Amino acid sequence: MKHLQRSSRRQLLRMGAAATGILAGPHTLLAWDTPGTLGIPLGPYGERSPFEKAVRWRRDSKTPETGSSFTPLQDSVGTLTPSALHYERHHAGIPTIDPAQHRLVVHGLVDHPLSLSMADIKRLPSVTRTLVLECGGNSAGEWAARTGPDVQRSYGLVSCSEWTGAPLSVVLRAAGVRPRASWVIAEGADACRMERSIPLAKAMDDILLAYGQNGEAIRPSQGYPLRLIIPGWEGNTNVKWLHSLKLTDQPYMARDETSKYSDLMPDGKARIFTYQMEAKSIITFPSGGQTLPGPGVYELTGLAWSGRGRIERVEITIDGGQRWAAAQLHEPRLPIAFTRFRLPWRFDGRPSIIASRAIDESGYVQPTREALIGVRGTNSIYHFNGIKFWSVRADGTVTNVEG
Amino acid sequence: MKHLQRSSRRQLLRMGAAATGILAGPHTLLAWDTPGTLGIPLGPYGERSPFEKAVRWRRDSKTPETGSSFTPLQDSVGTLTPSALHYERHHAGIPTIDPAQHRLVVHGLVDHPLSLSMADIKRLPSVTRTLVLECGGNSAGEWAARTGPDVQRSYGLVSCSEWTGAPLSVVLRAAGVRPRASWVIAEGADACRMERSIPLAKAMDDILLAYGQNGEAIRPSQGYPLRLIIPGWEGNTNVKWLHSLKLTDQPYMARDETSKYSDLMPDGKARIFTYQMEAKSIITFPSGGQTLPGPGVYELTGLAWSGRGRIERVEITIDGGQRWAAAQLHEPRLPIAFTRFRLPWRFDGRPSIIASRAIDESGYVQPTREALIGVRGTNSIYHFNGIKFWSVRADGTVTNVEG
Repeated sequence: MKHLQRSSRRQLLRMGAAATGILAGPHTLLAWDTPGTLGIPLGPYGERSPFEKAVRWRRDSKTPETGSSFTPLQDSVGTLTPSALHYERHHAGIPTIDPAQHRLVVHGLVDHPLSLSMADIKRLPSVTRTLVLECGGNSAGEWAARTGPDVQRSYGLVSCSEWTGAPLSVVLRAAGVRPRASWVIAEGADACRMERSIPLAKAMDDILLAYGQNGEAIRPSQGYPLRLIIPGWEGNTNVKWLHSLKLTDQPYMARDETSKYSDLMPDGKARIFTYQMEAKSIITFPSGGQTLPGPGVYELTGLAWSGRGRIERVEITIDGGQRWAAAQLHEPRLPIAFTRFRLPWRFDGRPSIIASRAIDESGYVQPTREALIGVRGTNSIYHFNGIKFWSVRADGTVTNVEG
Repeated sequence: MKHLQRSSRRQLLRMGAAATGILAGPHTLLAWDTPGTLGIPLGPYGERSPFEKAVRWRRDSKTPETGSSFTPLQDSVGTLTPSALHYERHHAGIPTIDPAQHRLVVHGLVDHPLSLSMADIKRLPSVTRTLVLECGGNSAGEWAARTGPDVQRSYGLVSCSEWTGAPLSVVLRAAGVRPRASWVIAEGADACRMERSIPLAKAMDDILLAYGQNGEAIRPSQGYPLRLIIPGWEGNTNVKWLHSLKLTDQPYMARDETSKYSDLMPDGKARIFTYQMEAKSIITFPSGGQTLPGPGVYELTGLAWSGRGRIERVEITIDGGQRWAAAQLHEPRLPIAFTRFRLPWRFDGRPSIIASRAIDESGYVQPTREALIGVRGTNSIYHFNGIKFWSVRADGTVTNVEG
């Protein structure tokens, strides 16, 4: 493995030994296949296999245009989320936008108001970054231990894509931001005109006007043709179907930053503008709803991420949190992207309580649920990032651990 | 841009200045949109926008099950190829395989023949790598200067995906390779049983038994449910629908390594087992068939890759190869993966001959077509990696440069 680091090679050799365990036992060679029949022709656009059934799960809502759909993390491999399975959180359905008609208007406290076509934006310098998007309300059920039965329904409002777009700072410089401006109000072209207030300092830092996702145009459910991508910030601020940026000297206190996406604290006051997503991790195999076929060697695996940068370390427990061991991390560990972790584990048929905890490059350690509640109380809906335990029973079934 | 390197930041500032040029001129603010109508509901699987039309282009062949389909590189953004648009090269169509029935048989010179189910393989240690696949015959028309009119039809047999699978070495160790074995014959489950001979040393190095592509199961047209992924080697050796690995003491001299995928040299002898793909690059914008709307600032961009490792440098000429300037490279530069390059350029309305050349971490410099023909003659079909020139005319149209 020429391009793996030395530590990876050692780990792999160790796993190789474990693999011999996985592959041990009687193997009967398959009777040779009958001669093959001619397959189907080449095609312009390759769909997935009819045997693959993974889909997003939609939480019931009164209107089908409003709500969330959850990524099937239990089926994830590697570090990317297929665009077709990226989680959704919509407030007024998915608009159908003709990119030839779409405009991004930059106005308010600027010297040169701009109305940019998609062609204008695609002529600008481009930046490509692999980034996690996570809904501020992901794993909200964990606050009250009323969580979904599997990793999709409890943690599926997080996905990772390669995003491509123009730096917002380039457009703002061209527009000439006036000295009095301190906020940017981003508004989407959906029916409810979803809007969020972004501090100017962040807007001048690393925000993208994104038109590309995983090597093609952003999909309609992710904001086609233009989405604000704000590295490390809660999904809701990454305004989809972006059509207006207004420079102002104060935030708008919009519906989606007051009635929603704020955090009611134990003292009755609310935190607002809590944009940053903290370090978090989840074991995807084995996870709730899955069943181990029997005792033996398995590879525990899952995903870790942090809105603050790179994942530095992931630790795994198999005894409910008494002891923790370092997992192997997939390289490259990109900042604010999914980092896949894994650890070989021998399931001996005795019950086990498993969990992961992430440590990011800022030194932040993913807290326990109890520690989180100790600080933030139980009124919160958003920003749950506590350690998540799964219970592996003697019969190999895996369930949530309540509480 | 916190996570960009210092040089990137400088580059971006320079590009920002150029962008002001792009965005200069009168801008009329769009009359405010009429109130939006409710969009379409959330869904289980998100398709692309009906306004997006990019598809693979299929070269005519006598049977629709045999041939090639080409990736629309002119529409690419970032560094990944959408799985639905990954190039194809099939010899007997795409088989429909039930993964629950599929087996990988490991036999021949081994102590413990194995018949592995997909579940067995997925229990093994997993490795994820972003890798280019390129057909050995990509840009074959360039040998005779009978090339396609655009980048898709001339260079589209190359794509880049995130692949996930088990290391082949782990399985071979478990099978117990006998001392006399020196080759692995890999065979696919397509109707023609496509097979290639792989030296054992490479099989024990970095080859993957891949089941994942871009975060989901490999698509049928890419080998579902199991494909051999051989980093840096010509696409044909990356056997799709893999169902048999036979350990032998000699290569098989199979049809696809004798009548095809060998290189007839000027002295009448043929090179065989020319697995390695060398450094190569191509400008995707502006490229053949595209039209610049007028003089002004544009960002030249394209893709570079090498079967030997990382891209170290990409140089661009706008005067037919007299002078070369270093392009900006997108980070991270992963080994044997697409590296996106870009350079701001002011098109002043005078004809220009543009091209890129890649230099990889081994120091290899992408050669001119003439230098390549000087060594390999003109009988070759495979492994063309010469520098590719595009002609930008005064009216902004872009065409191939013959010869």
